[in-house]
Amino acid sequence: MKNIQSILLFFAIISGLLVHAQTDEDVLKTIYKTSLTQGESYNWLNHLSNQIGSRLSGSLGAERAVAYTKEELDKLGLDKVWLQPVMVPKWVRGAKEYAYIETTPGKTNTVNICALGGSVATPALGIKAQVVEVKSFEELETLGTEKIEGKIVFFNRPMQPDLISTFDAYGGCVNQRYQGAVEASKYGAVGVIVRSMNLRLDDLPHTGSMTYGDLPVEKRIPSAAISTNDAEVLSTMLELNKNIKLYFKTNCKKLKDVQSYNVIGEITGSQFPDKYMIVGGHLDSWDLGDGSHDDGAGVVQSMEVLRLLKTIGVKPKHSIRVVLFMNEENGLRGGNKYAEVAKQNGENHVLALESDAGGFTPRGFSFDCNDANFNQVLSWQNLFKPYLIHYFEKGGSGADVGPLKNDRIVLAGLRPDSQRYFDHHHASNDTFDAINKRELELGAATMTALIYLFDKYGTK
Amino acid sequence: MKNIQSILLFFAIISGLLVHAQTDEDVLKTIYKTSLTQGESYNWLNHLSNQIGSRLSGSLGAERAVAYTKEELDKLGLDKVWLQPVMVPKWVRGAKEYAYIETTPGKTNTVNICALGGSVATPALGIKAQVVEVKSFEELETLGTEKIEGKIVFFNRPMQPDLISTFDAYGGCVNQRYQGAVEASKYGAVGVIVRSMNLRLDDLPHTGSMTYGDLPVEKRIPSAAISTNDAEVLSTMLELNKNIKLYFKTNCKKLKDVQSYNVIGEITGSQFPDKYMIVGGHLDSWDLGDGSHDDGAGVVQSMEVLRLLKTIGVKPKHSIRVVLFMNEENGLRGGNKYAEVAKQNGENHVLALESDAGGFTPRGFSFDCNDANFNQVLSWQNLFKPYLIHYFEKGGSGADVGPLKNDRIVLAGLRPDSQRYFDHHHASNDTFDAINKRELELGAATMTALIYLFDKYGTK
Repeated sequence: MKNIQSILLFFAIISGLLVHAQTDEDVLKTIYKTSLTQGESYNWLNHLSNQIGSRLSGSLGAERAVAYTKEELDKLGLDKVWLQPVMVPKWVRGAKEYAYIETTPGKTNTVNICALGGSVATPALGIKAQVVEVKSFEELETLGTEKIEGKIVFFNRPMQPDLISTFDAYGGCVNQRYQGAVEASKYGAVGVIVRSMNLRLDDLPHTGSMTYGDLPVEKRIPSAAISTNDAEVLSTMLELNKNIKLYFKTNCKKLKDVQSYNVIGEITGSQFPDKYMIVGGHLDSWDLGDGSHDDGAGVVQSMEVLRLLKTIGVKPKHSIRVVLFMNEENGLRGGNKYAEVAKQNGENHVLALESDAGGFTPRGFSFDCNDANFNQVLSWQNLFKPYLIHYFEKGGSGADVGPLKNDRIVLAGLRPDSQRYFDHHHASNDTFDAINKRELELGAATMTALIYLFDKYGTK
Repeated sequence: MKNIQSILLFFAIISGLLVHAQTDEDVLKTIYKTSLTQGESYNWLNHLSNQIGSRLSGSLGAERAVAYTKEELDKLGLDKVWLQPVMVPKWVRGAKEYAYIETTPGKTNTVNICALGGSVATPALGIKAQVVEVKSFEELETLGTEKIEGKIVFFNRPMQPDLISTFDAYGGCVNQRYQGAVEASKYGAVGVIVRSMNLRLDDLPHTGSMTYGDLPVEKRIPSAAISTNDAEVLSTMLELNKNIKLYFKTNCKKLKDVQSYNVIGEITGSQFPDKYMIVGGHLDSWDLGDGSHDDGAGVVQSMEVLRLLKTIGVKPKHSIRVVLFMNEENGLRGGNKYAEVAKQNGENHVLALESDAGGFTPRGFSFDCNDANFNQVLSWQNLFKPYLIHYFEKGGSGADVGPLKNDRIVLAGLRPDSQRYFDHHHASNDTFDAINKRELELGAATMTALIYLFDKYGTK
């Protein structure tokens, strides 16, 4: 008996030593290998995209996605899985939009548009009016009420192609989409058409959120995006004849808020159960495609982080949570709710990592944190080099984790290659066929590696 | 008069100073901006892919591609443009291949195959035989003649998914395709079927070159690639019943060598006209797709290097040549011919850069050069950082520039992101729709930047 106990003890010590003998290099190698050879992220995304589809807040798709991801997290053997209630806005597109350019009465040229998320619909018979093309709000102001009243304002400032990060190019344009209706309404415009946020020339309109700010109901004008090809056509036609008219009809509607949920899973920490590190993406998507890149990819990668940690036998010191946020696209209610509840419960969040920039080849991370934490990250650069992860910069993190910001937390965002992202963003071609399995899996592994290192060494 | 001369002289000096005042940072910025906003590479590739199509050596497509690229180079106002004659092999696929698995007589399951480049055809009625699946040549040897004679050898070692560079995974498998017939023939096999070199599971067979070495004619057995999905099916069926048979019929043929050309353009150097720096890709492609990634991308990027230098007003010190090589895929005759003529003419080549790894987002370069040159490259790393170009490693360069190797020349290869490359490589989906304009243009700019720096600072 004693001998057997000794032998068991011996093996226990040896295996303990073996675990400890694993270098960070070894662990990262195991993480990447497991993701690339036994990954679940691609299968999960296949289901989310092809069996459920688009997941706009308040839709049946969003509801089914909550149920599906909770069910999958339940299977992982985490310490806790739960739904966090959050009321979300419900906006529906209704019947497909229709639009044409009328050069002379009766002579029309159909163009591809889609209502912007949150927009009011046109009257039942649509709107037909002359068009004023502008590239900026300053140009709008210069034209003033006299030139704009009764017309449709066409915001046509393209994304700047010489910016290397397409997110920078997006940042330089998206105020036209988000704020365009408020600005155009000031001068009596009857509608807004925005050039799609897309660096390519193609036929797909790209939706996205817009605001009416505090405009009274009667000042809220219908707003739609037009494909980049058709933006070029419209602009050229206006150059030839500024009296041409645009007709458009949209059928969207804002309904009452509905009940929805953030989906949360947790591995409770072995040493610091009260210190939380979270990893997440957003479960909702726009309604035109199936939201594979935005942000189905981020959802399944975040789930995969916890699955990989368990699969390779890492027992984290901190509590690691996956948070699948609801309603990033048109309200950020999920992100706000999570931060609100965390505050109520006095939970100490030390790190929050978001993946919401597409499922493309990961290049690195951007960080919103203090110098001590950032320098710690820089000390890990060589660990990531074999995986071609080279981008570690200060900068933004992610919309959903933003509400957690304080002066101690490490906020981070995965930064995949951005070149193709806006080819698909918020459009009908944000679909599963645009996902490369390896790229998705490399992203999941890269996130897991960062979480592993921060858990092991702690935040500063 | 004197005053006017003084004024002219003054402006000449000032403008000279302004050019000199341009930092390397400025020039690289101009290079990238010009490629991304006024690039020609995408238009050229559109023509090459969609108006000409596949360009297998000796085909009409290859001939038209020679004429087209020469014509386009002629328009650029280079100092010289010429065709360099080279005899190339001509192999034709003939009618589409056909294959099925026969589980019991009369019960068949069609599978997707394509003949490997250079293979002999099956007899007119095809081949039907039992199948022996192996993962390696060692396994083949162990089985020996007794188990292999009269059967079809099925090489089914998959690309290793946990290697980060897909080229490494390719390197670990491609001997099955290239050398499989020679090895299987030793033991009396009647045919060879090779799992496609593809990391994805899909229905597309991927062709590529194979050899018979010095096998006598009667020992040359027909060889074909099978799609990865069908490789899985075949393997599973063999597990269930090792007596199943495979039928396949191919219709390919080797014809006599035909006349073709490398296409060459030159900007003659202002200070060192006898020192040559070349940039190139290969004009030929396999016949199943249109060769957009392999290597239409490299062709148009290489042309773009010279166009960009001229467009932004760089007058190189060294002679810079674009070389569009013929017959990389099944013979390397173009690469060998170029090196042979260079030697005959006593031309001093100091640098050769190839782009032949797809038109995806560029990550950097690999180099085959001495330490002094490599260290010089490393000193330029920060110049490339704004463009997310981070990969500078010693390693291979490109097949076409290989024959120029000596102990002084800098050989280099552009290294784009490799994750999607083998999804398309040598298959019917290597087509223009798989090209992203920005990724292609970033590659062209990155190559131009390297050539600019090497021309300015010289090789060591």
